[in-house]
Amino acid sequence: MKDAIQALRWNDGELEILDQRKLPERESWIRARNPETVAKAIESLAVRGAPVIGIAAAYGIALAGLQKNATPERVCVAIERLRKTRPTGYNLFHALHEMEDVVERKAADWPRRLLRKAIEIHRADERACLSMAEHGMDVLGDDEHVLTYCNTGALATGGIGTALGVIKLGHKRGKIKDVFACETRPVQQGARLTVWECSRSGIPVTLLCDNMVAALMRSGRVTRVLVGADRIARNGDTSNKIGTFTVATVAHAFKIPFHVVAPITTFDLSLRSGRDIPIEERSPSEILSSVKGLDRLPNVQAWNPAFDVTPSRYITSFITNLGVIRPPFEF
Amino acid sequence: MKDAIQALRWNDGELEILDQRKLPERESWIRARNPETVAKAIESLAVRGAPVIGIAAAYGIALAGLQKNATPERVCVAIERLRKTRPTGYNLFHALHEMEDVVERKAADWPRRLLRKAIEIHRADERACLSMAEHGMDVLGDDEHVLTYCNTGALATGGIGTALGVIKLGHKRGKIKDVFACETRPVQQGARLTVWECSRSGIPVTLLCDNMVAALMRSGRVTRVLVGADRIARNGDTSNKIGTFTVATVAHAFKIPFHVVAPITTFDLSLRSGRDIPIEERSPSEILSSVKGLDRLPNVQAWNPAFDVTPSRYITSFITNLGVIRPPFEF
Repeated sequence: MKDAIQALRWNDGELEILDQRKLPERESWIRARNPETVAKAIESLAVRGAPVIGIAAAYGIALAGLQKNATPERVCVAIERLRKTRPTGYNLFHALHEMEDVVERKAADWPRRLLRKAIEIHRADERACLSMAEHGMDVLGDDEHVLTYCNTGALATGGIGTALGVIKLGHKRGKIKDVFACETRPVQQGARLTVWECSRSGIPVTLLCDNMVAALMRSGRVTRVLVGADRIARNGDTSNKIGTFTVATVAHAFKIPFHVVAPITTFDLSLRSGRDIPIEERSPSEILSSVKGLDRLPNVQAWNPAFDVTPSRYITSFITNLGVIRPPFEF
Repeated sequence: MKDAIQALRWNDGELEILDQRKLPERESWIRARNPETVAKAIESLAVRGAPVIGIAAAYGIALAGLQKNATPERVCVAIERLRKTRPTGYNLFHALHEMEDVVERKAADWPRRLLRKAIEIHRADERACLSMAEHGMDVLGDDEHVLTYCNTGALATGGIGTALGVIKLGHKRGKIKDVFACETRPVQQGARLTVWECSRSGIPVTLLCDNMVAALMRSGRVTRVLVGADRIARNGDTSNKIGTFTVATVAHAFKIPFHVVAPITTFDLSLRSGRDIPIEERSPSEILSSVKGLDRLPNVQAWNPAFDVTPSRYITSFITNLGVIRPPFEF
């Protein structure tokens, strides 16, 4: 199973990045020839989703190695630059750590090895998506109506996706009848990206506002929740797109199974619990700008955390590329 | 305590309706000279909020009585027209029932009596707001940080508001330090109207997306939730703006007190439970239109209920103009 949608393309010495801010209105591509362009694409959310951010950063380091004046020291500066783009998703740090290993081994052909490693990280994530999707079949019943949150598909990974990958395969196998996608304010990754991916994959999708989750679950139309993750601590506490914790709380109240789908590169076993996961706060303007005239009112602030942490006890199981697991994790 | 903001003004034989769809960008007024204009203003959300919808409808019937060719029969047709504008909020039916009583008494000066009754309904709601605010002081502690939902202020009532009225008085008395306002997708009554009212009242307000409620409550910064209501059943089940049930579920999980603030005209004691409350579904385009290009994708639907029902067990108490109460209700 392969997806026609790709978030990244390596093409003759440059990284082409699908600008997700423009979707679904139009497909436009950013052509990155240096790590700074990749860093800016990550910071501005042109490319987003923990797994694909890791892949993009790896290619960014490959680009650093291909610069005319490249040295291992300059590559390390690029690694530090990319490490500072976004603090929460763990795949970024995992990928940069692998790239750093390549530089530090100081082989004669280190620039070529950096590119090879980036491509390897990309392919490994593609395979991990397929494994997660297959393992996901073990938790699905025969007549599922799945709620998902944010975007966790081909746009967020190097393959068919994490949670949305399970949904795509589940739909293909006839186990999933339809999907409910939450808008995912303020950046609307659900409304803009998940709806677009489902539509292109022929999966019937119903969009709802994030606040409608309790009403929808009470109506009895949701059999299961599948979400992705940005970083998972050793005890199973899971950071994911802001709002996931609200969905999980409601699913728990209704006793609806709630699964996190993530590759092992998202697990940060150095962290004991979710309290240790750094949470990115983004500009209030992402929220205030949605209403004309709001930014000039006095006494008004906005709070804009990009992620929240769902406690492990609300998570039925973790669907990974190594199988369906529960904490304590050991790998 | 009086508010500078007014949603409706009766002015020399016409009803001036503040067009809330344009707020906070600009204040523009609709001048209604007949009941049909009032009905359209209610349907299109130019005026919204259960108490003020009841008042607007009463003035609409007063306008019907002031038409050149007015007869009691034509007024009854207007009453039926207005009854069909929106199904959920109970104040509308309560007000129209009072207006119908006036027509049915067939006094010689019935048109003048209709206007007098509409003004009386308006003034009664203004007084009810003040009573609710005073009763609300009994539940507040000395250092409250209140989360509210949708808009329940001067724009939604004939006075200072229901939940937002309690907040205004609580802030004036030094009991409420600041307010968290949820955006309230898809119509953004929180972001557009509550933020505007708080800002004009000098109350520090922090806007958040509806999905951030769990993360905010976990942070420990919310001491209490105050919301309004559109219709309350005999057992205390409460319909209110879509998303209220999600907030209530999360507040319950965090053991944060959750109060409904409503005048007794919102209580429909003919209904045994929330299952009997009719819930309005509005056009999917209210949701789909927020993202360019979404409406032309295949396989895509949107679900847009305007209200949900919070079960009585999630509601700490009801702050009404007759006092702070709990079901079973008797009045």
